Amino acid sequence: MNLKNDLILRAARGEKTERTPVWLMRQAGRILPEYRKVREQAGGFKKMVKTPALAAEVTLQPVDILGVDAAIIFSDILVIPEAMGLNYEVIESRGPWFEKTIQSKKDIDALKIAEGNDLQYVIDAISLTKKELNGRVPLIGFAGAPWTLFSYMIEGRGSKTFSNAKKFLYTEPALAHQLLEKIALSTINYLNAQIEAGADLVQIFDSWAGILSPEQYREFSLKYISMICNAIQENGKKEIENGKTLTSTPVIVFAKGAFFARKELGKLNCEVIGLDWNMEITESRKLIGNNKTLQGNMDPCLLYSDDETIVRETEKMLREFGPQRHIANLGHGLYPDIQKEKVKLFIDTVKNFRHGS
Amino acid sequence: MNLKNDLILRAARGEKTERTPVWLMRQAGRILPEYRKVREQAGGFKKMVKTPALAAEVTLQPVDILGVDAAIIFSDILVIPEAMGLNYEVIESRGPWFEKTIQSKKDIDALKIAEGNDLQYVIDAISLTKKELNGRVPLIGFAGAPWTLFSYMIEGRGSKTFSNAKKFLYTEPALAHQLLEKIALSTINYLNAQIEAGADLVQIFDSWAGILSPEQYREFSLKYISMICNAIQENGKKEIENGKTLTSTPVIVFAKGAFFARKELGKLNCEVIGLDWNMEITESRKLIGNNKTLQGNMDPCLLYSDDETIVRETEKMLREFGPQRHIANLGHGLYPDIQKEKVKLFIDTVKNFRHGS
Repeated sequence: MNLKNDLILRAARGEKTERTPVWLMRQAGRILPEYRKVREQAGGFKKMVKTPALAAEVTLQPVDILGVDAAIIFSDILVIPEAMGLNYEVIESRGPWFEKTIQSKKDIDALKIAEGNDLQYVIDAISLTKKELNGRVPLIGFAGAPWTLFSYMIEGRGSKTFSNAKKFLYTEPALAHQLLEKIALSTINYLNAQIEAGADLVQIFDSWAGILSPEQYREFSLKYISMICNAIQENGKKEIENGKTLTSTPVIVFAKGAFFARKELGKLNCEVIGLDWNMEITESRKLIGNNKTLQGNMDPCLLYSDDETIVRETEKMLREFGPQRHIANLGHGLYPDIQKEKVKLFIDTVKNFRHGS
Repeated sequence: MNLKNDLILRAARGEKTERTPVWLMRQAGRILPEYRKVREQAGGFKKMVKTPALAAEVTLQPVDILGVDAAIIFSDILVIPEAMGLNYEVIESRGPWFEKTIQSKKDIDALKIAEGNDLQYVIDAISLTKKELNGRVPLIGFAGAPWTLFSYMIEGRGSKTFSNAKKFLYTEPALAHQLLEKIALSTINYLNAQIEAGADLVQIFDSWAGILSPEQYREFSLKYISMICNAIQENGKKEIENGKTLTSTPVIVFAKGAFFARKELGKLNCEVIGLDWNMEITESRKLIGNNKTLQGNMDPCLLYSDDETIVRETEKMLREFGPQRHIANLGHGLYPDIQKEKVKLFIDTVKNFRHGS
């Protein structure tokens, strides 16, 4: 099906766009009263993730209500550890919690490499969303980066330092690689299944990139992100050869806090690099090079301020990124207590802005 | 009194040292069973902070037990907000908690600018520690950077995002400056009193530097750190003119996560810049310049690994920093569950290492 709005895809591929496209991390979420209503009726976050009709419903909400240029499938990065055999709960206002964590080789051996159909509920949600989107905007699929998922699987929950996960890298490097590879292989299967089901772009979230030293980041994270990017490109080529598609699916890599790895991120086999709000735009462009589209990077806290400040800072950001090879977004997910009107103002400011005017 | 070991002071001033000096952030703390015993008997963290004899006792422990090249006064960065009129509690395993937080101009106006003698218990602890150290090693005094203290005063407790504090910067920039200035003036009084009481160096901890955008960091944090550095140097000059001392007191600035501000940090009126473990050493030296001593920057999690790895990585770090203008430390505070023997191994590795051998 042809897309009516393919701005994000064109920007990702480095093709010319009339204006900068925009979407927001966590756009489908608690900032929308419509989302909170569905969540209440569903009886919790995981129920929504596991019910394709509900996941599709909240995925569409920001397209209808906020007017973003892409939908992102409503799901959770921790569905992969669960599909590998590690169940988790989401405890209200405390976050994810794993009853069992990975501590030994035996634990790792017991995990399976997830296949696309182990996550059939996500695949169904994507098919359903694509149908309901009816070509209005592209749909973004996603997965957590292996290092970020690894952190949760070792730690068992969120943490400020993730010191258990990092300790594991130092004390059991060979086991760490074994687990990371299993996660990476599962993620490749999962992302390819999302693409097969209709995802137009995919994003890899490395939320805990910033807690590793540059050297450890290369060894334990970048390596596996690179493996995933290569596998997706490889699969894309095959699909093109088989005549199933005309273009491969762009990949966005967002490694929060990995300022020290920007040069290497620029060499990944992917189309888009996400920046957080700590990363200066001009410097990042220089480090990453001109062959990538950049995504980001407004501080989400800007959206707490008055309208004038939001417009001024958003336009300043747009000017610094320039008219091409930019997808406007925040430098992190929306915070749940940000007002919907402020989010809308950010989006409208991007959509109304014309460079050089 | 002459110091028997002044390695850290010489390194800070850029004078030649026979070997690299070493101390550790949070060296007086839960990794030592001797500390835990005192804390238990005292009945809590704040009681220790407020009782000069106890604070002095735990300050000396790492000098006696670990053999570090400096003591750092046992205290808390939040004593300044308290001296300004904002009481706080330390809740076991949850961290600091303020009953009242700063929300308005009225709240800020109600705060006083703290004087040195508002924190007499810290000053007394310093005098007592200096006496008991008897010149063995220098004593480091410290304070939190205004932005970090501001974050706690607005937020009321620790937070992953400190979104209330950041919101305040966007919505009430003038009030934010008013509060930051009050904190900075209090900190100047406090650090000068620490120096007067015998602190041989002082460190400014900007623990939450990394959550601001580069631009906000300049406006709301660096400005006030700079103000403090200038005031301390100014006071040092006066003391030299009055014949009270021969040299001014070196200042260490540790801005965790402020990778984007390294150039500006290099221009501060201070002697030492602390690096966290995300900051690459060679690149940081280039950005900060040759006129500063660098401090850091081992990942604390290294100390979870086996002895061979600890020695190898520590020596690698020492080689990269080079033989002069370096104070060995971690890139963050010690985690409480790190084994004492591993900490000792890190310290001994630094002390035994000779460059070019």
